Amino acid sequence: MTLLTGKHIIGAEFSASGHGRFYAVNPATNEILPGEFAVATQEELEQAVTKSADAFKQYRLKSGAEKAVLLETIAAEIEGLGDELIDRSVAESGLPVGRLQGERGRTTSQLRLFAALLKEGSWVQAKIERALPDRTPLPRVDIRSMLRPLGPVAVFGASNFPLAFSVAGGDTASALAAGCPVIVKGHPAHPGTSELIGKAIQRAIQKCGMPEGVFSLLQENGFQIGAALVSHPGIKAVGFTGSYKGGMALYQLAVNRPEPIPFYGEMGSTNPVFVLPGARRAYGRSLAANFAGSVTMGAGQFCTNPGLLITADDPQSADFEQFLKEEFTKTTGATMLTSGIKNAYEQGVASLQQHALTELLAKGVATDAYTAAEPVLFKTTGKTLIAEKELTEEVFGPSSVVVTADDMAGLYDIAHHLSGHLTATVHGTPEDLEEYAELIAILEDKAGRVLINGFPTGVEVCHAMVHGGPFPSTTDSRTTSVGTAAIERFVRPVCYQNYPQSLLPAELKDENPLGINRLLDGKWGYQ
Amino acid sequence: MTLLTGKHIIGAEFSASGHGRFYAVNPATNEILPGEFAVATQEELEQAVTKSADAFKQYRLKSGAEKAVLLETIAAEIEGLGDELIDRSVAESGLPVGRLQGERGRTTSQLRLFAALLKEGSWVQAKIERALPDRTPLPRVDIRSMLRPLGPVAVFGASNFPLAFSVAGGDTASALAAGCPVIVKGHPAHPGTSELIGKAIQRAIQKCGMPEGVFSLLQENGFQIGAALVSHPGIKAVGFTGSYKGGMALYQLAVNRPEPIPFYGEMGSTNPVFVLPGARRAYGRSLAANFAGSVTMGAGQFCTNPGLLITADDPQSADFEQFLKEEFTKTTGATMLTSGIKNAYEQGVASLQQHALTELLAKGVATDAYTAAEPVLFKTTGKTLIAEKELTEEVFGPSSVVVTADDMAGLYDIAHHLSGHLTATVHGTPEDLEEYAELIAILEDKAGRVLINGFPTGVEVCHAMVHGGPFPSTTDSRTTSVGTAAIERFVRPVCYQNYPQSLLPAELKDENPLGINRLLDGKWGYQ
Repeated sequence: MTLLTGKHIIGAEFSASGHGRFYAVNPATNEILPGEFAVATQEELEQAVTKSADAFKQYRLKSGAEKAVLLETIAAEIEGLGDELIDRSVAESGLPVGRLQGERGRTTSQLRLFAALLKEGSWVQAKIERALPDRTPLPRVDIRSMLRPLGPVAVFGASNFPLAFSVAGGDTASALAAGCPVIVKGHPAHPGTSELIGKAIQRAIQKCGMPEGVFSLLQENGFQIGAALVSHPGIKAVGFTGSYKGGMALYQLAVNRPEPIPFYGEMGSTNPVFVLPGARRAYGRSLAANFAGSVTMGAGQFCTNPGLLITADDPQSADFEQFLKEEFTKTTGATMLTSGIKNAYEQGVASLQQHALTELLAKGVATDAYTAAEPVLFKTTGKTLIAEKELTEEVFGPSSVVVTADDMAGLYDIAHHLSGHLTATVHGTPEDLEEYAELIAILEDKAGRVLINGFPTGVEVCHAMVHGGPFPSTTDSRTTSVGTAAIERFVRPVCYQNYPQSLLPAELKDENPLGINRLLDGKWGYQ
Repeated sequence: MTLLTGKHIIGAEFSASGHGRFYAVNPATNEILPGEFAVATQEELEQAVTKSADAFKQYRLKSGAEKAVLLETIAAEIEGLGDELIDRSVAESGLPVGRLQGERGRTTSQLRLFAALLKEGSWVQAKIERALPDRTPLPRVDIRSMLRPLGPVAVFGASNFPLAFSVAGGDTASALAAGCPVIVKGHPAHPGTSELIGKAIQRAIQKCGMPEGVFSLLQENGFQIGAALVSHPGIKAVGFTGSYKGGMALYQLAVNRPEPIPFYGEMGSTNPVFVLPGARRAYGRSLAANFAGSVTMGAGQFCTNPGLLITADDPQSADFEQFLKEEFTKTTGATMLTSGIKNAYEQGVASLQQHALTELLAKGVATDAYTAAEPVLFKTTGKTLIAEKELTEEVFGPSSVVVTADDMAGLYDIAHHLSGHLTATVHGTPEDLEEYAELIAILEDKAGRVLINGFPTGVEVCHAMVHGGPFPSTTDSRTTSVGTAAIERFVRPVCYQNYPQSLLPAELKDENPLGINRLLDGKWGYQ
């Protein structure tokens, strides 16, 4: 096993010039793990940003094919870490081996998906309007445009996906694909995992002959360096996945800088699940079982974890409540990522429990891990949910609230009152869906992703995915942090007017040397 | 001639419930024009927002074809206003008849261009990934996505384009095309023009049977209602064209609301023009004449007005300076839009004049209009420009600064030090462009549009246009306020997972009933 250096990665260098140190803790046992990790200093931050800005000058001019090789090499280097990566990430996160093996697969596929996107090349939205010298009253000159990178990007690793939403996760992959250097602020819950992945990226950059400043990794167990990174004039955009509180604090810094920058904060949501009467009658038992599974999977530590199940009262609803109670009672809690997250979960559960207008419906079984979470299901009424805003706030972990509206009008009322969510789900028979189509239309205005007869946990990495949604689920509903469209967060359109062919980027040259899909005089095609 | 009511347009109603009144002034004569305009109240704002939110529920579900008819009807209604519109806008703005006739043409063509975009339909970026039930280890469900409207949009009319960037200008056209109701805060410099256009839109909405709240127009001569509009929870995005100061004040409100919203502020820039040595030698005289024309056209009241001309010192630069001096001396000032703008221009010129390190190079001829602006050309050195930040700030009007760097290295230095601009221009012979290709690559990172051998004034309305750029030229470099891509400011992607065909929007149905360009399982095409 390689020794962890505990040092920051600043381009091709390692650094640990400050005095602060912190340690990783195994959440299942509360034991300190091997490795002493340096807390980054302001000087180290400056070095990383300077290298990043220097690297951008060259990196932004690299072809899609060149950037694709970098992403593929990073994927291969991560695979090359073998069991060492899995062992360390299991120890640091308390997540099961199988889950982390799967997450590693997701991380490397994601890198390769962006590589494929770059090789295909059409993502730049090339648009060409050729000169019209004979147009009256005024001729038109040649005008072309395509998407170009913004500059160095800061990425904040999330605790709940130590691989797929961390150092080499979706934010890093999409920013590197866009042509932006990345500085990652590692999550303090898994610094060893971060270092292993960071060194894999560093090796890939060296192997590909890319400028060293294309990637740096700074670690800390506090908030100072993260805040300084977002405030630094050299940083041009930020990708963040985490809590509402943390996300909003960094968002405020980003948008109130002398030069404001885009801040992409994915802050989670309660992901309401609506169950229509026909579905409940037809397959209420299996629905209840699947719902209990979705709430408690991975100790409920997913941004898309369903925190609300909404139905309308009728003669069958008591049966369904009974199914939910029975199925939920069978669930088992799991190790939570950190004791901080466990404490926050317990506080969230306690405040639901103490709320005068909610009732405990069922509890699952806790394990004996140090940070084991006990699954908890509450119930309340539709009117209460609308009146009491705090019931719609995310409790990160394996809890949920069953909401029974007085009738279907009350259920529609709840839908109208929802704030922004990452997802919204409807369960219904074909007849239900026809009868209550308006509900689905309302939900489209409330969420980034609307699902029919499914569960929101499990986010497919593909072109059509939207892992985003109206505030407060994110700080920028116009984007996604999962799927290939995530690349659009780190680019802006640039217009090239009256350029000679020789100076145009390949994507915009007349002969279309890359063979990409372009808008030529108003018509899209591979022309 | 129709009497101006002086009232606000709140959906289908007129209102003037407050006590405040203001008047339009002819800037050429300083005479008060007919019409007494009400200052909007908070209650009127509430009414407009309520109607807007109600209208959104239906308007967002209208087809592209239906929205296209609305935009075309607005264009026809504007044309139906005939000379009354031109007479009033000439009187309110001091701009010449020919310019406003041209601007009307631009405004109606812009509305029709968005109508054509909607009828073609591909702008929604439909993406389809069909289910893969046999995929291992996990099957993939059907996942589709497309762009959907954000909600009610606030638009701030600009003074310098009383038609094309005002009540029915690019912001309104693109927001309505996106499926968003619009509330315009009319610019106080042309309230009569705003009312005429507002009533034309109101009539078009009635003729098309659209919900009345799709459009409202509130007027004021202060800042209260504008600020309240940006702060209102019912507003979901803002389009603004105007000054840096005004734009940033509203931006701060938008991003610091309890629910932050996108703020698209186009705040102008100094639009540097680089003149390379070969071009100066080969056609210095005509370059100087065209530059003087671009600086002084329309009293320099364009966001893309070139406020900096940058060259490197060599034996020919004295000749070029002489050409600039001679050509600029021939220019004539014109009536400015308001006395406030004239005062700001004179202050800007005075501060350049008093600056220890700038020199007066030439003056044009002022007219005798009340707000006539005198064209002024200054000169300074490259080192001064880099050291003195205030020299790069926009002076709105017919002035510019000729900057001579010590040598080409100094000229590159200037390019590296530029902040964000809407445009950057390079004049060069084919040999120049080859020799100094790196300069052009640097400028691509500094501006939304880079021009070769042209002038930035005159912004083509087309698909490939980018009228935007890095901060401080705009508050959001990822977008454009001119051209069809402006529609992307007012939408967000929505993902439809596992939908039955019957519930999918037409854009996403299997048979592609609209015949649009879509990404089907990773490949773009009209399939």
